[in-house]
Amino acid sequence: MNYLLEEKFSKIGAEHAPGQEGRQNIDEIQLRGEKIEGKPVDFSHGDVDAFEPIPGTLDIFIEGVHVGGKQAYTEYRGSEAIRKNVAKKLSNFTGTTIDPEQNFIITPGTQGALFLAMGSWVYRGDKVAIVAPDYFANRKLVEFFDGEAVPVQLDYLQTTTCAGLDLTQLEEAFNSGVKLFLFSNPNNPTGVIYSPDEIREIAELAEKYGAKVIVDQLYSRQIFEGRTYTHLCAQNTIDPENVITIMGPSKTESLSGYRLGVAFGSANIIGRMEKLQAIVSLRAGGYSQAVLKSWFAEPEGWMTKRISEHQAIRDNLIDKLRASGYFQLRTTEAGSYLFPRIPKLDVSISQFVKILRLQAAVTVTPGTEFGSQFTDSFRINFSQDHAAAEGAIERIIKVVEEYRK
Amino acid sequence: MNYLLEEKFSKIGAEHAPGQEGRQNIDEIQLRGEKIEGKPVDFSHGDVDAFEPIPGTLDIFIEGVHVGGKQAYTEYRGSEAIRKNVAKKLSNFTGTTIDPEQNFIITPGTQGALFLAMGSWVYRGDKVAIVAPDYFANRKLVEFFDGEAVPVQLDYLQTTTCAGLDLTQLEEAFNSGVKLFLFSNPNNPTGVIYSPDEIREIAELAEKYGAKVIVDQLYSRQIFEGRTYTHLCAQNTIDPENVITIMGPSKTESLSGYRLGVAFGSANIIGRMEKLQAIVSLRAGGYSQAVLKSWFAEPEGWMTKRISEHQAIRDNLIDKLRASGYFQLRTTEAGSYLFPRIPKLDVSISQFVKILRLQAAVTVTPGTEFGSQFTDSFRINFSQDHAAAEGAIERIIKVVEEYRK
Repeated sequence: MNYLLEEKFSKIGAEHAPGQEGRQNIDEIQLRGEKIEGKPVDFSHGDVDAFEPIPGTLDIFIEGVHVGGKQAYTEYRGSEAIRKNVAKKLSNFTGTTIDPEQNFIITPGTQGALFLAMGSWVYRGDKVAIVAPDYFANRKLVEFFDGEAVPVQLDYLQTTTCAGLDLTQLEEAFNSGVKLFLFSNPNNPTGVIYSPDEIREIAELAEKYGAKVIVDQLYSRQIFEGRTYTHLCAQNTIDPENVITIMGPSKTESLSGYRLGVAFGSANIIGRMEKLQAIVSLRAGGYSQAVLKSWFAEPEGWMTKRISEHQAIRDNLIDKLRASGYFQLRTTEAGSYLFPRIPKLDVSISQFVKILRLQAAVTVTPGTEFGSQFTDSFRINFSQDHAAAEGAIERIIKVVEEYRK
Repeated sequence: MNYLLEEKFSKIGAEHAPGQEGRQNIDEIQLRGEKIEGKPVDFSHGDVDAFEPIPGTLDIFIEGVHVGGKQAYTEYRGSEAIRKNVAKKLSNFTGTTIDPEQNFIITPGTQGALFLAMGSWVYRGDKVAIVAPDYFANRKLVEFFDGEAVPVQLDYLQTTTCAGLDLTQLEEAFNSGVKLFLFSNPNNPTGVIYSPDEIREIAELAEKYGAKVIVDQLYSRQIFEGRTYTHLCAQNTIDPENVITIMGPSKTESLSGYRLGVAFGSANIIGRMEKLQAIVSLRAGGYSQAVLKSWFAEPEGWMTKRISEHQAIRDNLIDKLRASGYFQLRTTEAGSYLFPRIPKLDVSISQFVKILRLQAAVTVTPGTEFGSQFTDSFRINFSQDHAAAEGAIERIIKVVEEYRK
C-alpha cells in the first residue's frame, strides 16, 4: 500500500461528482415528512432528451463509420480534414488565426482537453491559480499532477457589471510564483461572464509575469440577451504561446454522448498534448470526430432558438427562487448553470443534496464540489424540460422550508 | 520553460508511433533506385476495411443514440446494464468471477484502461518491471508517472514452447523492490503466448513478493491452431486485489473507431481508475458503450472464420519472409503481429522504415518503439487485405536486398 498515492486519490474523490450520485452512501439520511411527489429531475447535467443534439449529427456519424479505416485511425491530434474544418470555424468565432496543423487538437470531450493541457503544463510543485468557485475538476487536476492550487476569489454576488474576479489577488498569486492560471468563462458554476476589462487585465497580468493561461470556454456560445463575450485568445497583449483555449459541443449542442472537445493555442503545448493523448486514449473516437462537422454549422435559427428557450427557463426558475425569499443568487449570463446560496439549514450541504434526491427526486451538485468553502450553495444545470424543471425548483423550495434553521 | 517537464515529454515522443508517420521529418532520406510500385499497405495497425467490425455494431450504436440521455451520461465506470452484460461474458471467457459493480470499468479503448491502471498504481520513484520487447506505451507510461522501468528480457527467438520470459530476471526485479509488473499476453510485438507454466510462475512470484500485476490481454481471443491461452486472473495463487486485466474489442473485432476497452480485477484499483477517469475524460463515449453488447456475441462462426483468415495470411507472409533467407522470426501464436529481425543494413532502423514508406509504400513500426535495443527489428500488423499484404512483404524483401550491407 502506497499511502501517498492513497492520499492523492482521496483528494480526487468522485462520490459527489455529477452523475455519480447512485454510488453514494445514504444510510445516515433521515427524512422529515413525506416524499414530495413530482417528475424526477437530474440537474447535475443537461437533459439531452429535452434539448436534443444538433439535427443530423447521427447521420454524420454514420457517414464516418462508412468512411472506414481512415476515419477509425486518425492522427492522435485528430483527422486532418476535420481539424481544418473546425479550426476555420473557431478562427471566425474567436477572431483569431488557428493553424489546424500546429495549433489545434481534437480530444475526448473538453474534459480530455483540460486533462491533456494540465498534464502538459503542470509539473510537481508548480503553483496554479484556480478561481473559487470554479469547475470541480480544476482543483482535482492540480492535485493529480502534484501542483499547488492557489485560490483567487470570484465575488460573483457583489457585482453585476463583471464576473467579480479579485484581480489584486490574481496579481499577488502571479507575484508569489504562480505559473499558470486556469479558469472557465463563462464561469462554472455561477454562469457569469468575465467583462472585457477583466479579460484585458488577466491578459496583461499574465504577460507581465510570464504566466500561462488555460481558459475553458465550454459554454461560450450560449450568451443571453444583452451580454457580450470576450475571447482571451484574441487579446493582443499576451504571448499566444502562453494560451490554450478549450471548447466543445457537449453542452449547448447536446453532443456529450459523442465525447468531443477541442483545444487550440500554443503550438508547443498542443504538441505535448498530442504526445500525452497517445498514452492516455490514443485519440478522440474516430467516427465521433466526424460529428464535429455539424458544430458551428447548425441549421439557420437553431442556436438562436436554443438560447431563447434556455433564457425562458432561466427566467422562470430565478423568479421562483427569488420569490421564495430563501436564496441569494446572480442571474446567469451565459450557459445553463445557476448557483443559488441557501439559508442556514439543520443539515449539512452533503446531507441536503442527498435529502433532495431521496425526498424530492431532484439531483443537484453540492457547492463544495466547486471549492471547499461553498458549503451553502448548490449548482443546477437548467437545460431541462421546462415544466419538469419548474416543478423541481418548487420541490427544492419546499425542502429548504422543511430543513432550514 | 520547465526543463524537467520538457525532458519528460521528450521521452514520450510519438513521432515513430503507429499512425503518426505523416508527421515525420523525411528531409534526410536518400533513396537507392526507383520506387517499387504496389498497393500501399499500412502495417502499423489492422485494416478495418479488410476485416470489418462485428456485424450489427453500427445498429447497436444507433439504438444507443436513441436511448438518449441515459446512454449519453453513464456513471464514469460505465453504464450499469452494459457492465453487467460484459462482466458476465468475460467471467465465462476467463473462468473467474467478475462483479460488475466492484471489479469492472469501461474505458476509452484499452489504451485508456492501461493509462488509468498505471496512474492508479504507479507513484513517483516506483520501480515497474516491463518486458523487452513489449507494447510501446508501457515504458512511456512509466516515464509519465515518474516511475523507473526495470526491463525483463523475453527470449522469444530462443524457444517455441513458451514465450521465453526470463523468470530469474523477473524474480531479481521483484527482489530489488519492483512493485508492479506490466505485460501484454499475447506479447505485442512478437505475437507469442505465455505458457501455462510461465503464467503460473509469474503469479507465484508476484504473490511471493507482494507485487501487483497488470496484464494486457487485448489480442487474447485470436488464438491460432494448436495453441492454448492461460489467464493470469484465473490463477488461484495470486491475491485478486493485486491483479488488473485489460481487454477490448479494438483488434480482432475491428471496433477501434468506437474507442472501447475494459479493465477488471482489484476493487480498490477499479475505484481509483474511476476517480481518475472522472478527470481524464469523464467516461468512455456513452453511445459507444452500447456497442459492447455485440462483443462476445458475434454471429455463429464469425470468430472462427476471422481467426482462420488471419492464420492463412500469417502463414503466407512467414513463408515469404523465411524463403528470402534474410529474416529471423518466430511464428505468431496469437493476434496479428509479426516482429521480424532484419540483417545488417547500411541505414538505421529509423531510416529503414522511412525508406519503406517512401520507396515501397509500406508502413511498419520500428523495433525501437518496443525497447531501445530493438534496432534490428520491425513490427507489422498483418490484419490486412491478404493479397495487398503479400505484395507489401515482397516489397519489404526487395528494400532489404537493396540496403543490406
